[in-house]
Amino acid sequence: MKVLKFGGSSVSNSENCKRVQEIIKRNYANGKQVVVVSAFGGVTDELERCINLASKRSKEYEKSLLQVKERHFQVIKELNLSAEVEVGASNKFDEIAELLQGVYLLEEISEKVKNAVMGAGELLSALIFSDYLKQCGMQTVLFDSREYIKTQNGKGIFLNVEQTNKNLKAVKEVDFQVAVFPGFIASGQKGEMTLLGRGGSDYTASILAAGLNCSELEIWTDVSGMFTADPRLVSQALPIEQMSFQEAMELSHFGAKVIYPPTLIPVLQNKIDVRIKNTFAPDEKGTLITTSPKSERSIVRGLSSINNINLFTLSGSGMVGISGFASRFFTCLAQNKINVVLITQASSEQSMSVGINEDDRELAIEAVRSEFEMEIGMNLVNEPAVEQNLSIVAVVGEDMGYTPGISGKVFSVLGKNGVNIRAMAQGGNELNITFMVPTFDVKKVLNVIHEDFFISTYK
Amino acid sequence: MKVLKFGGSSVSNSENCKRVQEIIKRNYANGKQVVVVSAFGGVTDELERCINLASKRSKEYEKSLLQVKERHFQVIKELNLSAEVEVGASNKFDEIAELLQGVYLLEEISEKVKNAVMGAGELLSALIFSDYLKQCGMQTVLFDSREYIKTQNGKGIFLNVEQTNKNLKAVKEVDFQVAVFPGFIASGQKGEMTLLGRGGSDYTASILAAGLNCSELEIWTDVSGMFTADPRLVSQALPIEQMSFQEAMELSHFGAKVIYPPTLIPVLQNKIDVRIKNTFAPDEKGTLITTSPKSERSIVRGLSSINNINLFTLSGSGMVGISGFASRFFTCLAQNKINVVLITQASSEQSMSVGINEDDRELAIEAVRSEFEMEIGMNLVNEPAVEQNLSIVAVVGEDMGYTPGISGKVFSVLGKNGVNIRAMAQGGNELNITFMVPTFDVKKVLNVIHEDFFISTYK
Amino acid sequence: MKVLKFGGSSVSNSENCKRVQEIIKRNYANGKQVVVVSAFGGVTDELERCINLASKRSKEYEKSLLQVKERHFQVIKELNLSAEVEVGASNKFDEIAELLQGVYLLEEISEKVKNAVMGAGELLSALIFSDYLKQCGMQTVLFDSREYIKTQNGKGIFLNVEQTNKNLKAVKEVDFQVAVFPGFIASGQKGEMTLLGRGGSDYTASILAAGLNCSELEIWTDVSGMFTADPRLVSQALPIEQMSFQEAMELSHFGAKVIYPPTLIPVLQNKIDVRIKNTFAPDEKGTLITTSPKSERSIVRGLSSINNINLFTLSGSGMVGISGFASRFFTCLAQNKINVVLITQASSEQSMSVGINEDDRELAIEAVRSEFEMEIGMNLVNEPAVEQNLSIVAVVGEDMGYTPGISGKVFSVLGKNGVNIRAMAQGGNELNITFMVPTFDVKKVLNVIHEDFFISTYK
Amino acid sequence: MKVLKFGGSSVSNSENCKRVQEIIKRNYANGKQVVVVSAFGGVTDELERCINLASKRSKEYEKSLLQVKERHFQVIKELNLSAEVEVGASNKFDEIAELLQGVYLLEEISEKVKNAVMGAGELLSALIFSDYLKQCGMQTVLFDSREYIKTQNGKGIFLNVEQTNKNLKAVKEVDFQVAVFPGFIASGQKGEMTLLGRGGSDYTASILAAGLNCSELEIWTDVSGMFTADPRLVSQALPIEQMSFQEAMELSHFGAKVIYPPTLIPVLQNKIDVRIKNTFAPDEKGTLITTSPKSERSIVRGLSSINNINLFTLSGSGMVGISGFASRFFTCLAQNKINVVLITQASSEQSMSVGINEDDRELAIEAVRSEFEMEIGMNLVNEPAVEQNLSIVAVVGEDMGYTPGISGKVFSVLGKNGVNIRAMAQGGNELNITFMVPTFDVKKVLNVIHEDFFISTYK
Repeated sequence: MKVLKFGGSSVSNSENCKRVQEIIKRNYANGKQVVVVSAFGGVTDELERCINLASKRSKEYEKSLLQVKERHFQVIKELNLSAEVEVGASNKFDEIAELLQGVYLLEEISEKVKNAVMGAGELLSALIFSDYLKQCGMQTVLFDSREYIKTQNGKGIFLNVEQTNKNLKAVKEVDFQVAVFPGFIASGQKGEMTLLGRGGSDYTASILAAGLNCSELEIWTDVSGMFTADPRLVSQALPIEQMSFQEAMELSHFGAKVIYPPTLIPVLQNKIDVRIKNTFAPDEKGTLITTSPKSERSIVRGLSSINNINLFTLSGSGMVGISGFASRFFTCLAQNKINVVLITQASSEQSMSVGINEDDRELAIEAVRSEFEMEIGMNLVNEPAVEQNLSIVAVVGEDMGYTPGISGKVFSVLGKNGVNIRAMAQGGNELNITFMVPTFDVKKVLNVIHEDFFISTYK
Repeated sequence: MKVLKFGGSSVSNSENCKRVQEIIKRNYANGKQVVVVSAFGGVTDELERCINLASKRSKEYEKSLLQVKERHFQVIKELNLSAEVEVGASNKFDEIAELLQGVYLLEEISEKVKNAVMGAGELLSALIFSDYLKQCGMQTVLFDSREYIKTQNGKGIFLNVEQTNKNLKAVKEVDFQVAVFPGFIASGQKGEMTLLGRGGSDYTASILAAGLNCSELEIWTDVSGMFTADPRLVSQALPIEQMSFQEAMELSHFGAKVIYPPTLIPVLQNKIDVRIKNTFAPDEKGTLITTSPKSERSIVRGLSSINNINLFTLSGSGMVGISGFASRFFTCLAQNKINVVLITQASSEQSMSVGINEDDRELAIEAVRSEFEMEIGMNLVNEPAVEQNLSIVAVVGEDMGYTPGISGKVFSVLGKNGVNIRAMAQGGNELNITFMVPTFDVKKVLNVIHEDFFISTYK
Repeated sequence: MKVLKFGGSSVSNSENCKRVQEIIKRNYANGKQVVVVSAFGGVTDELERCINLASKRSKEYEKSLLQVKERHFQVIKELNLSAEVEVGASNKFDEIAELLQGVYLLEEISEKVKNAVMGAGELLSALIFSDYLKQCGMQTVLFDSREYIKTQNGKGIFLNVEQTNKNLKAVKEVDFQVAVFPGFIASGQKGEMTLLGRGGSDYTASILAAGLNCSELEIWTDVSGMFTADPRLVSQALPIEQMSFQEAMELSHFGAKVIYPPTLIPVLQNKIDVRIKNTFAPDEKGTLITTSPKSERSIVRGLSSINNINLFTLSGSGMVGISGFASRFFTCLAQNKINVVLITQASSEQSMSVGINEDDRELAIEAVRSEFEMEIGMNLVNEPAVEQNLSIVAVVGEDMGYTPGISGKVFSVLGKNGVNIRAMAQGGNELNITFMVPTFDVKKVLNVIHEDFFISTYK
Repeated sequence: MKVLKFGGSSVSNSENCKRVQEIIKRNYANGKQVVVVSAFGGVTDELERCINLASKRSKEYEKSLLQVKERHFQVIKELNLSAEVEVGASNKFDEIAELLQGVYLLEEISEKVKNAVMGAGELLSALIFSDYLKQCGMQTVLFDSREYIKTQNGKGIFLNVEQTNKNLKAVKEVDFQVAVFPGFIASGQKGEMTLLGRGGSDYTASILAAGLNCSELEIWTDVSGMFTADPRLVSQALPIEQMSFQEAMELSHFGAKVIYPPTLIPVLQNKIDVRIKNTFAPDEKGTLITTSPKSERSIVRGLSSINNINLFTLSGSGMVGISGFASRFFTCLAQNKINVVLITQASSEQSMSVGINEDDRELAIEAVRSEFEMEIGMNLVNEPAVEQNLSIVAVVGEDMGYTPGISGKVFSVLGKNGVNIRAMAQGGNELNITFMVPTFDVKKVLNVIHEDFFISTYK
């Protein structure tokens, strides 16, 4: 059994639905398939806009909702679907309209209502798509993800793993060739609809793959896998055939947006392979994310980068020899929910540097200043120093750590090109070398390193 | 007014006392001098041994104490000192004997008694040395540091800066050419004797230099300053003429043992120059530590290293995207008083690495395991990984950060020599590049880098 | 200037409105009057029922709302009010209908919507009543309490005293003979409608009396003041002419329901007299609550009682000599919001007893058991003991404490009547003697004490 | 097996030792006896004086110690004890002298040394007394309590019950007729001597009785048991034949000083009878403390009283209706270690009163003022009110609660006598009625109640 997840761009109109249907049909003989669908491309955003308009007492929302409705009914018509689907979709839109009218009347949005409106897109696309597969002659069953995937409250929304896996046992006993699940949606402890957050449909697919003991998860998107570097910055970038989960997480974390790493945790823990495929070029190999990827020609797997990074440095003579500074510093950052993308402390506790997002700069300065107010007042600690307009670059590859000379190669090519390195770090897991450079240099940096590791080796 | 501090090796016998006397005489015409003396070389350790023996009900302590006493009286005799000093020293030894007998009877050591015994060495050496200077015709006044330098309790013992500086005003009004202060000792809030801890006499000198607004602090020791690398490891190491406080702190922190950085904070904050000089080669230039050192030929000021470092790594898929891990990790290390010599987090929060001392390894594993017990149990975090037999190397130089290519030069020479770099960090203050290598490579590493930066540039 | 507050029973139909109008007219020559009105009797409850029905998707709410609307329009018609009021009331009912429809659609109730619906009753009665006074030829101004009375969030809703009093200054400058304010409603920091909780219209009146520096507050209700005992239990009960605030609070706290004590705090702090009057017998004296009431014939001012009280006792040998038990016990009760009506600890910390409401029994047992789980397990503390079916009786009188023999008289009359006293307490403020007796004895207890203190003295 | 404990007055000289010996001999035929002895009367205080003198560098301590030594040797001589005892006692005094000299030399007292000196009195009396019993022909074994009774650190010193009872198993297997244990002393987790605190020898006896499963514990003192009231205040006071543990604890807690209640916990938990006997009138019955005492003629078991009590009242209108006040009030008192002898809250949370010791008055005012500073500033809570010169009286009797009329009798006799009751409490365990009266009335109060309950009933 395999799980196939199709993102919003893969199911944005009837033509694309046909492409997807062909992909599924091609696999049809090979065993059961579990298909996870996102909402039609752009629908979730549109529904969010509707609810915001309604809460501000703008009747505009009715027009927007109508467009969304028409788009779905056009697909229903073009795919020539059953009356049942027409009724189902129509009822769903009535429900949404009622909720939006309620929001309009009360001028307020509750979590419950927001979830109910924003998750409707997946319910609709799954309804439509499952009927389409039936029309195409496949033995298809539509499942309601809310009955299987349970969340619990904590800080944020956490998956109730135990309950979910227990629920999924029932799915295995249903007779189907193709099971269709709406992505993104789940239900809470009291049965209310909840949403799985950023990367939600990938998460649905990952949860199902793990809970149903599938052999593979295919993520169908609009690119042909992950690349050795961002093709928009490095024209010679190549697709990566295989990589480990850790490498995928590193590249994603440092800028490659194909997957959102936390969604992969269920498959990672169950050692299920993930394949990134392109709906619009289904014959291309894509990228296989697996526990033991075969070696490629280069020891470096790929490069990625993030712009708008600030280098935040706390220093001071009073930091010498007094333990607990790192602890207070990081606790302070964590309490303010400031995301740290790189940590480096190279010297005698006189200074500690972290990479943070430009957006968190003001907050970080304020928070750290207030935490160390007394020490700053006594000149034991300096005012926080922040360097802006930096980018962080990650050179990723699992075997790098065991190969002497990689860091020499990286840094000497940068030296030769006159790039000023503002901070660097390489940790014990030796998976990547990370450093910060001025943003105006980042394109050059990626290209010279890419040339050195991926291109010259072939020549 | 200058402060001159003479360490234990400089005042270990009458011959050395004469050397020191000559150094002071040479300056005599140039204005007032404040002289800080340590206990005679080895005496503090010997007194500690006595008190430990007494607390274990061993009469051995009497013999040891007698030897210490004879050594002091021999110097008194050889230097032909006054009867007054003889009486003073004799009384001091009676007091110590009473305390040690009390410890012997009760078989326990209180903080108060321990301080009183261990600080006696400085009281004796100051008594003897001040009388000797008088005998040599210098206008000398002996001061009791306990009446001026006040500590307060906190975590550890902290200097009561305000009270101390207030007390020191009285010193300025005393008529003297040479003022002698015993190092190491101070007094607490209730007047009880307290000790200034590791590097204590340097700290006394630094406090006096700051509190008396001196122009310079000379630290007289048995080496001719700080070197570009440890001469025992790098035969081509050269003395460093000038350096900044930050550079001195970095080199000291990472292994160069000439000074203990926290003791320099008072002079650093008052921008007082510090000169490291050699009692046994007073004509050699030594090293000047100053706020604006003049540039040397190499952009790198020096190298240092510490052995017996472990690379401690905490990793795990459950660390992705959940804030607060760094905070919990460092709080846990701080609460267990585990000193962290390098921090690096290069990747997607999947892993965080710190360099710690071999001695803290067991404790760190225990503490981190217990902090993350639940997450480890759920396979969200892996068991802490520790790599042993590593050394940390610091390449220090204040202008390094503004010079592209330094890191390239460092890491490519290491790559060429096949050195496997286990972790690296360079922070926002750009004062040094720090990395960890296997200890069996550290001598090679220091030599090849030293060759590259200090030697080849001259050729 | 006086404040007159008319409760729901005083304004439940057009006939009663006329009574109230006559009361106001009678005072008309004596200066400005501030009138606070509750919602028409029963309306608030009815609106609450509507919102609950709507949230459960029951269209029943429409019928209920219609009845409420008809009742208001009948009064408007009977009193022959202005078209303006008709329009105003009609709009208000449209607003309510919209909100209820929103609740019906979303099937959920937010605090904001609940307040808006439930506070509508006072807005309507004030609108109607102020117009009626105008029709009767009085110079009347209708004020919107929400513009003056501000609440702030804390635990529960607290009055923002400073802001409220500042706002009320503007009222003084308005030219009116009669000012009408809706009771119960206020507004929060962002201007949203908030409610003043239990006894809310009394609270409105009390806040206005204090903020407008009035000389007196009249609370018009359906009884002729407070009585020496509950007339339903003690047929010989007499009205109390005068009493202090403290006495009123005690009697109310222990069962006499005429006023809700916290609402009196503003007038108490400003030493404003409060008079309880009967709308249906306006010539009866009622009860005057004042700072220095004149003495009555009996040293005891009145009796009151509450049924359904439990005596909750925590005891155990392990409670002896270990401090902190009372602290833990009361913290535990407070955290569980368990209201304590009597506390008594007569013995050697072996036991501590509190009176609590029957309704809190299960919760209290659970909470205390869990707090002292370890001690109970070790037999240091016994399982909590609870005695049910008890009533608490309070004998109240400010001068009791200074008169020897009151307690003797109370307890010996109980002894003679064979009443088993389960707990008793009299504290330092000597305002009352409180004790617990079996509920089946409470009527007898009240009668024999009442006979002894109020009746026999006259004979 | 019985445990007999003899206090300091019972073993203050050789004559008294003979009395004790006779008591033991009388029981000799009835089975094994475990004898616990205190230090000779006054010795513990004298040793404490010695250590304090020594720590202040006063040689006076030598004279005091000599007197203590002579007193012991006089008993040894008068009782004609063995040479072995003489040597043992002499060694013990040498040890004490060494410790005191150590204290003299170091001018400081550690917990360890203090315990070692202050516990020596019991070691000496047990040594002497056990030898005397041997000389009298009884088969006697001297046990060192330190080897059996183990304490652990917590807040204060707690008994390690498990370890102690395990150790005591070994005692049962020793062949003896009389076992002598020094009271008061025990040992800590590292074997160091610890002391059992106030009432320490009673505690030793109670621990042994429980750990050795004895049938009875006899506490031999210098009074003939517990009395119905303090004979110094009530001339007609009678000895109490039997009473329950709870009653004994109550009477002790409220002033009867014969026993210190916490020491009885071990025997209470094991339901072992305790008999209070008079060494100087061994034929008198004394008082039996037992789980089911037989009824006496009066329903009241006894009266007791404590002077120097203050009635501390916290009141204020702001206390109404806001939960958590009692919690904050008692937490505040507990954190300041203020002992509360009575709690009463009779009224509407407007006021809460506690009885505290005069000595804690200042501290309590300070602490409560600071806790409620804000509320006091806002006039929500009044300044704490304290009434001085009060006494607390407890009327104790286990069956009181089930007998209507007791409280009536108590309070009406007080009323008739014009006694002004300042506070009263009776809790759920109905064991006692407690009230506070002016101290100048307390003698009258005790006498009139005593007359009423104990004397008139016989007439």
